[in-house]
Amino acid sequence: MQAIDRLKRNQGRYKGKQQFLAMYSSIFEGITTDTAAMVIPMDDHMVHRGHGVFDTAAIMDGYLYELDQHLDRFIGSATMAKIKLPFDRESIRRILIQTVSASKCRRGSLRYWLSGGPGDFNLSPSGCHHPALYAIVIQDQSPPDFKGLKVTTSSIPIKPPQFAVMKSVNYLPNVLSKMEAEEKGGYAAIWLDEDGYVAEGPNMNVAFVTNENELLMPHFDKILSGCTARRVLVLAEGLVREGKLKCIRTGNVTVEEGKSAKEMMLIGSGVLVRPVLQWDDQLIGNGKEGLVSEALLNLILEDMKSGPPSVRVPVPY
Amino acid sequence: MQAIDRLKRNQGRYKGKQQFLAMYSSIFEGITTDTAAMVIPMDDHMVHRGHGVFDTAAIMDGYLYELDQHLDRFIGSATMAKIKLPFDRESIRRILIQTVSASKCRRGSLRYWLSGGPGDFNLSPSGCHHPALYAIVIQDQSPPDFKGLKVTTSSIPIKPPQFAVMKSVNYLPNVLSKMEAEEKGGYAAIWLDEDGYVAEGPNMNVAFVTNENELLMPHFDKILSGCTARRVLVLAEGLVREGKLKCIRTGNVTVEEGKSAKEMMLIGSGVLVRPVLQWDDQLIGNGKEGLVSEALLNLILEDMKSGPPSVRVPVPY
Repeated sequence: MQAIDRLKRNQGRYKGKQQFLAMYSSIFEGITTDTAAMVIPMDDHMVHRGHGVFDTAAIMDGYLYELDQHLDRFIGSATMAKIKLPFDRESIRRILIQTVSASKCRRGSLRYWLSGGPGDFNLSPSGCHHPALYAIVIQDQSPPDFKGLKVTTSSIPIKPPQFAVMKSVNYLPNVLSKMEAEEKGGYAAIWLDEDGYVAEGPNMNVAFVTNENELLMPHFDKILSGCTARRVLVLAEGLVREGKLKCIRTGNVTVEEGKSAKEMMLIGSGVLVRPVLQWDDQLIGNGKEGLVSEALLNLILEDMKSGPPSVRVPVPY
Repeated sequence: MQAIDRLKRNQGRYKGKQQFLAMYSSIFEGITTDTAAMVIPMDDHMVHRGHGVFDTAAIMDGYLYELDQHLDRFIGSATMAKIKLPFDRESIRRILIQTVSASKCRRGSLRYWLSGGPGDFNLSPSGCHHPALYAIVIQDQSPPDFKGLKVTTSSIPIKPPQFAVMKSVNYLPNVLSKMEAEEKGGYAAIWLDEDGYVAEGPNMNVAFVTNENELLMPHFDKILSGCTARRVLVLAEGLVREGKLKCIRTGNVTVEEGKSAKEMMLIGSGVLVRPVLQWDDQLIGNGKEGLVSEALLNLILEDMKSGPPSVRVPVPY
């Protein structure tokens, strides 16, 4: 096991800020807390052909937030990517919860993947006989951040709708889009769809508050159906009832409409709700973090901490 | 190391027909012949974001075929994917040759990857400080196969040109295209470009012999520049001199032109030159393996076995 020993020795060199607390792998049929063992076979079809899908769930105060909603999307992505489930939904769910339990993590995130599995290096998955499930628990104690951001418009082509609606690991366009934004001093780059309408960010949705005080979000038909974004649409109904929003609308959003909005925000399980203060050279609204964005972030945080059982799955530690 | 021990124990379950003889990894800074150690860190940006590129080279009688041509494309792909080289070109070349040497393989293939490297699970590679190099040697003793094949037309959308011209691991469209062909009893599905012209197969180029006896191949501007296909274009000049071909032409190829060709073939480092006898419901030519395809396969095989030093790099075992 010389190679593995070296891997262990060299670990420090690669260590980033994130702490990986536990990993489940169906290949070794168990959970490990040894970071040197958090590996995947090179011949897994996900590694060398991108034949894998993933999803996430936030861990908040010992609860998994919106696990079932993410799990439904995860299984939907696997179906679209023609990856058979190695276990039924209930078993996958149980394994994910057990992995968080073994990690002892109470605040952070869970990431999980379904892959074509190992077998060979061919393009066809016909030699990969056992699809694989992997899951990792990542510690994250940082408080929610509400500081406004700058975004740019992505020059990287958006994926065809068939691929944009599934959460596969084919994220090179997303990576290049993110890098492009960072090179321009932005946080993320916004994709426009093939008709020029506002689509999505590289791993988050976008939403606007129009000058008529509507919450406006692009349709989910050509972009990833965001779990957090969908939850925001539900929670925002409270703001309509309180009169803080006129209504909620999903539909085509032009760039002009977006850039002249009163508020703009990024929504996702990573960013939660983050205000956008500038898009390319255009200040959004008065260039300050907006009231609706703030109210929506607070609603999501409250939901994560004390929402109904349908969005909060307790982890038995 | 319980997880690794289990991984070793469970190996047999996943073992396919391919034999992996050696693996180099810049993570453990060395070469292993232990298949249980042929792994990649889960947090490598290539695994969870597809931020990696790859290439191959055939190993024939102890020589690496067209290593330098593949290596040039590999480095070009890395540049397009914004992956910095962990070593200079000469060092990468030396490591690849050493890996084949350590494997003792004289007939098979070498596959290699450059990745964003490990660090964290974020979308941005800014936390991945060391790009990684991996290489695997796969034994393959099977004789070249000249049996004609059936192909279909892919219904899976082709990648935008910016992504089609780089060999990244974002091959899910290619996998789904291959699976679609196999479900229809075919070997591969042919992609048409956005204007409806013949583009490429999921991991090979296509070429035709027209009724005017021209060798016709689609342009490389929107598809992957095939190393084997480019070599075939050079070697085919001999057939022009012998009068077996009228000329060699690259350009737009319509589906009608393709389907009414005298011969059709797939060309790649895996298939070498394979005749296509049927495309969808249409028989190609007389439905038999053609003479030009056979002559081109023989030229490639001869080139692999006794071509000039520019295409044959000796491995010092």
